[in-house]
Formats: sequence, C-alpha cells, structure tokens
Amino acid sequence: MISLEQIKKLAIPSASKIVMLVIDGLGGLPNPKTGKTELETAITPNLDRLAEEGICGLADIVSPGITPGSAPGHLALFGYDPLKFSIGRGILETLGIDFGLKKGDIAARGNFCTIDEKRLVTDRRAGRIPTERCVQLCEILSHIRLDDIQLFVLPVREHRFSLVLRGGELSAKLSDSDPQQTGVFPNIVAAANPRAERTARLVNQFIDRAKEILPQHYPANMILLRGFSQLPEIPTFNDTYKLKSAAIATYPMYKGIAKLLGMKVLGGANSIKEELTTLARHYAEYNFFFVHIKQTDAAGEDGDFSRKVKVIEEIDVALPPLLSLKPEVTVVTGDHSTPALLKGHSWHPVPLLLHSQWCRPDAAKEFSERACTSGGLGRFSALDIMPLAMANALKLTKFGA
Amino acid sequence: MISLEQIKKLAIPSASKIVMLVIDGLGGLPNPKTGKTELETAITPNLDRLAEEGICGLADIVSPGITPGSAPGHLALFGYDPLKFSIGRGILETLGIDFGLKKGDIAARGNFCTIDEKRLVTDRRAGRIPTERCVQLCEILSHIRLDDIQLFVLPVREHRFSLVLRGGELSAKLSDSDPQQTGVFPNIVAAANPRAERTARLVNQFIDRAKEILPQHYPANMILLRGFSQLPEIPTFNDTYKLKSAAIATYPMYKGIAKLLGMKVLGGANSIKEELTTLARHYAEYNFFFVHIKQTDAAGEDGDFSRKVKVIEEIDVALPPLLSLKPEVTVVTGDHSTPALLKGHSWHPVPLLLHSQWCRPDAAKEFSERACTSGGLGRFSALDIMPLAMANALKLTKFGA
Repeated sequence: MISLEQIKKLAIPSASKIVMLVIDGLGGLPNPKTGKTELETAITPNLDRLAEEGICGLADIVSPGITPGSAPGHLALFGYDPLKFSIGRGILETLGIDFGLKKGDIAARGNFCTIDEKRLVTDRRAGRIPTERCVQLCEILSHIRLDDIQLFVLPVREHRFSLVLRGGELSAKLSDSDPQQTGVFPNIVAAANPRAERTARLVNQFIDRAKEILPQHYPANMILLRGFSQLPEIPTFNDTYKLKSAAIATYPMYKGIAKLLGMKVLGGANSIKEELTTLARHYAEYNFFFVHIKQTDAAGEDGDFSRKVKVIEEIDVALPPLLSLKPEVTVVTGDHSTPALLKGHSWHPVPLLLHSQWCRPDAAKEFSERACTSGGLGRFSALDIMPLAMANALKLTKFGA
Repeated sequence: MISLEQIKKLAIPSASKIVMLVIDGLGGLPNPKTGKTELETAITPNLDRLAEEGICGLADIVSPGITPGSAPGHLALFGYDPLKFSIGRGILETLGIDFGLKKGDIAARGNFCTIDEKRLVTDRRAGRIPTERCVQLCEILSHIRLDDIQLFVLPVREHRFSLVLRGGELSAKLSDSDPQQTGVFPNIVAAANPRAERTARLVNQFIDRAKEILPQHYPANMILLRGFSQLPEIPTFNDTYKLKSAAIATYPMYKGIAKLLGMKVLGGANSIKEELTTLARHYAEYNFFFVHIKQTDAAGEDGDFSRKVKVIEEIDVALPPLLSLKPEVTVVTGDHSTPALLKGHSWHPVPLLLHSQWCRPDAAKEFSERACTSGGLGRFSALDIMPLAMANALKLTKFGA
C-alpha cells in the first residue's frame, strides 16, 4: 500500500475536478421477499449510466469483516488508514459545530440524560430534548468554574453537547462517564495514567457541579461524557493531494471530519437537492468536492428498507446538475454499509463506481452490489480510492524512472 | 504479503523451467472507434490458447492508481516491492551499457543538450545527436581530470550518456543539474547533506570543464545530469528463489535491471524473433528466463494504436519455438500499461496469464484485459507473480508444519 507521504510526492496540481459523493451507509442486504438490496431495488437511471460508463468494485473500508464507524469510514475514503489515524469522538463532535479548537484542548461528547431517584440512568438521551432546551442548559453549565482552566459547554443538537477544557497540561487519557446502557450508575471518570490525573479530577468536579444544578431541569437531570480526545496530528488533505477541496454536508460530524483534514466546508444546504446545487454554485472555486448524504444511513439504522430505497431514488433524481458539470472524475460510494435488515452499520464492503474518461470497460452495467462484484476494480481497499481518483483525473505523475 | 526472506526459506531448487515474457506497456485502453484495446484488437491465437489453458488476472504493479516507471515495474514483476527497493536512474543507465560498476561508485544519467547564447536550455536532447557523435564527445569529456577521483564518461545512445565517479568517500545525495524543462538555466548541483559536499563540488567542476570544452560542438554544446545514485543493497534473484536465471532483452535499461539482480544477460538478439530463438538456444542452461519485449511500449508512447497491435501480433507469431519447449510455467504480462490513447505509461493494471499444468480453470478464454477481469487470479498485486510462478513450477515447499 502506498503511503500518504509517497502519494504527496507524486501529486501534481491541475485544473481537473474530482467529485466524491458519499451516500452514507449505502451498502445493503437483500430484502428476503424480493432478493434485492436497497440499491438494487431503487430505480436509478443516472447512477446506472455512470456505472456502465465507468468502472465498479466493492471497497473494504477498514478491513474485511470489520464494521466501520463514521469517522474511520470517512478517513479511509480520503486515503487515511483508519488503523493508523484516529479521531476521538469528542473532537469530531466539537469540530462539527464550528468551534475553534486549539492544540491541547480536551473535548468530550456529552449527552443530557435522565437518572432516577437512585441515580440510575433511565434514558441516555433525556427523551431527546429539543435543541433550544439544550442551548439553555449548556448556557447554565457554562457558568461552572474550575481551577485555572477555561471551560466551554457547547450545544450540538437535541440532547447532544460538547465539553471543551482548555489551559495548562491537560490529558485526554480518560475513561468515559457514559456507561452506554441504562439501569446503571454513570461512571466516575478515571485517568489512564498519572499525567491524566489532574484532568480526571477537573472533569469529575465538573460532573459533580452539573449534578447539583440539573435536578430542577428534568428530564435532562444529569450528563454523560464520552470520547475524551485531542486534535490528532494528521497531514492535511490539500497538502497531501495538492487539491483545493470543499465539503458539502448537512450533519455536524461530517463537516467536522472535513474541517479537520483542512477542507473548506460549504454550508447552507439542508436537503439532498440543495447539497447538489451548492456543489454547482461553487464548482469553479475548487477541484475536489466531498458531498455527504446522511439520510440513507438514518433509514438503514431505523430498519426502514423502503425509506432507504426512496432516499437512493431521491439522490438519483437530484444528480443532473452534477452530471451536467461533467467533472473529470466522479466517485459514488458509501462510508460503510447499513443494511436495513441489520438496523446498523455492517462489515459488508461498499459498492463503488468511478466514472472518468480513462476507465477500462468492465462487466458492471448498473450500480448495485451484485454488479460491483463483477466490476473491474474487484474487491479492493478503500485506501486505494483516492489514488485511483487522482490517477483518473491525471493528477499523479509516474512513480520511479 | 510474504517477504523475500520468507520466500527464500520455502524455495527449493529443481529442474522445472519458468519463462516470464514481459511485453512492455502491454495493457491498453479501448480504441473509441471499436471499443477494443490493443491486445483485444490483435489476432493472437497462441496467447489465447495459453490463456484458455492457464489462469488469468489483472496485476497492480505498484499499487492501484499508481503509474509505474520501468524500473519499479520490473522490480515488482520479480517480487521486489518497488515501494521498498529503488534503483537510481544513473545506476540503471550505467548497468545497461555493461559497465562494471563497483560498490561506492556514483553514477548519473547525462544528456548532451543545447543552450543558447544566454546559457538557457533550448533542447534537452541536443536534437538527438547520432550515437557516433555521442561516442566522440564522451571520449573528449573523458579527458577531464578531477582531484583524486577516477571519472568515466560512457556513451549510451543518441544524446544519452552515463557519468561515473569512483574513489574516496563519495555520496550520491545530490540534486540534478537537469532542470527537466527548456527556457531555463541548468541547475548547479547541490549537496543534500554535508557528507555530499565534496562530491557536489567535484561534479560542478566537471560540469564547468564541459561547459568550456563543448561550445565548439553545437548542437551538443552543454550537458545535463540527473539521477545521481549508487548500487542499492538488494538480495539477488538467484539466491532468493534458488534459480539459475537468464535475461534476454534488447534495450540497455532492462539488461541493467536483470544484471543488478544477478541474472545472466544473454546478448545478441535484435528482434522479437531473435529474442525467442536466443531463449531456445540457451534453454538447457537455465531454469528461469526473463524475456523483455520493448516495441509495444514504444508504440504506445508514440500513440500509435495500430503499431502496438502489430507488435503484439508479431510476438504471437514468434511464440512457437517457445511453446514447443513446453516450459513447466509460462507467464506473459507487462511491467505497466501504456495505452496508445494516453501516449505514456498508465496506472491501469496489466493483463497477466500464467500457464502451467497445475492451474485451476477460470472464465478467461482469451488473452485480453476484459477476459483477465474475470480470470481466476482476480485483481492482484504483481508481488504475487513470482510466488505463483514458483508454486506452479513446484519450486516452493509448504509454509509451516
């Protein structure tokens, strides 16, 4: 496998454009009644044409058999080995809300939750309180003062918030307070090593203060924290590939990953159609576009086969503005599979199509898991997607004499 | 991926023969008029029969999306990971002309070039002067004397020569004087570290002396140097695979690579037919033959689709003397693709056929990119070619108990 440092030496800046359309949780499993997956059931003339003209395959995102989370999934799509690079949950959540994280900051993902009179967790999401309520509660918790350090309590959406600690020698080597189940007590945050002891003490102080303040705000009468993390050392996407890149996404986490890698996040879109018109509006300004569509994954997670089919069809209908731009390279794939039958992320490789002028013809005549199995890319590592996209955009020079 | 050290432990010497026929730049892209690649257009009954009886696949030479140079391409075919082993351009060029390089020698690839009265490069190849002229000019430059070191100026072909420095503590950590473009000055050679400073000074002295001598030899009135390098530390082919190997090639660089790996170069052939009769003549003496055919790549680089087709047909016609020898294993592949449409090396995987008594049948009934896509070897790494060839020649013992 070629490394990012080696790719960087081969990358040459050029005007050609690459569009990577990530349909979250795209891969599926057949509906037992029809024998067809979500993608195979959906009517997708535009995607089918791209697949027929281009080259297809099945990409293993992390490694065969491994079910990827969203962050590792996207890292792999962008060519960063998720077994080597990792982004903590707290950092991801915080990047997604456009908070200016600094090196050394500690971030955690927070949930407002409900505990009963015995202090056992009864609802890890406090009945999914409205976002406005979350904003008010974060404002209240922001007034907590801890020795010597700055503290940010940042609302995200519904019951979700970020906690950021700043100042002095902090360490993210901390265990979660979130027990990830109901009927048990929240955990005390523990330091994994002596250097993290001060940070653990500060975090537990914060939790104790919140515990005193929140009882009057039922159902959000407690907090749970997880994914303590710091900004990772990671080479930027633009520097590595010599690209000018933009990201279009509606959900915070995906904007966060894009921002972390140094992509420009283009905001404002709230639907699939708007995402693709945003792409068209900014097409002249960038030469790499990451477009993230969330709704497929949400439908898959809900086990709603037919809604996932409808979202895929909605994407296909929204494609013409993208197609008419005729990018030199179009990649359509997912960051992992989310079969409605499994109601969650799965290990199945993701269908992928790569469309460019320079593809060798293959047997795939439509965009489906089945067709991708006989595609010219075969079954391959997601880490090869970026080198293949760059090659087809004629953005890589020869390796060696 | 199994390492060379591990393969070495499994290799067992035996009389069975392996022939690896490397058709340079073999892989192609479809002619838009016919939808067929060069190999698919060519009429190749002999290759088709080998493909039908054997097993086929598409080999990624360096890594998917990466366009290999000729040296990395051949290293990969011989099982040496080109991301790990590299051969400098100067060493390659010098090995190819049968000069006895010694450990510690510094070699550079030289071009005679043309500069104008302002000393700007106007032609990096001095109008491709005839080889005889190159021989005369190298003889003249050979008389340059530098403090304490020996100096060899070795003609290659047309405007190409090798410069070899020998003696004392030399270092190849030097930048190129060749700016790789016209309209600019040649560069001063710079040392990448203090240990290379003496060598940089000597090389720049040589260039200065050449600059004084050459103006009367227009258009070859200046020289450009690139690819300063030393012999790499590389395990020999025969020792690794327990083979007695021979190489048959018409172009210097390929003889050079073979020599570097310790193969015996069998000279004298000047055409495809002669290469295959050379093989037949020496068949009893060796048990591995690397046969390199250059003309396909040259036609591809020239963008000459039909000439590439004709060369492939010429190869097929020349095959019977090889076929009648019935080697236990025959591998036919390329070191990279050179589609006439792209007029250069490309990243596309190379079609490969492996013929032996022990192949499992697959769907490939002819030798073409399309058939190889559905071949039993699938899409695989070129580093697996040698282990597969060795296995099919029954030259590898079991791994582990």
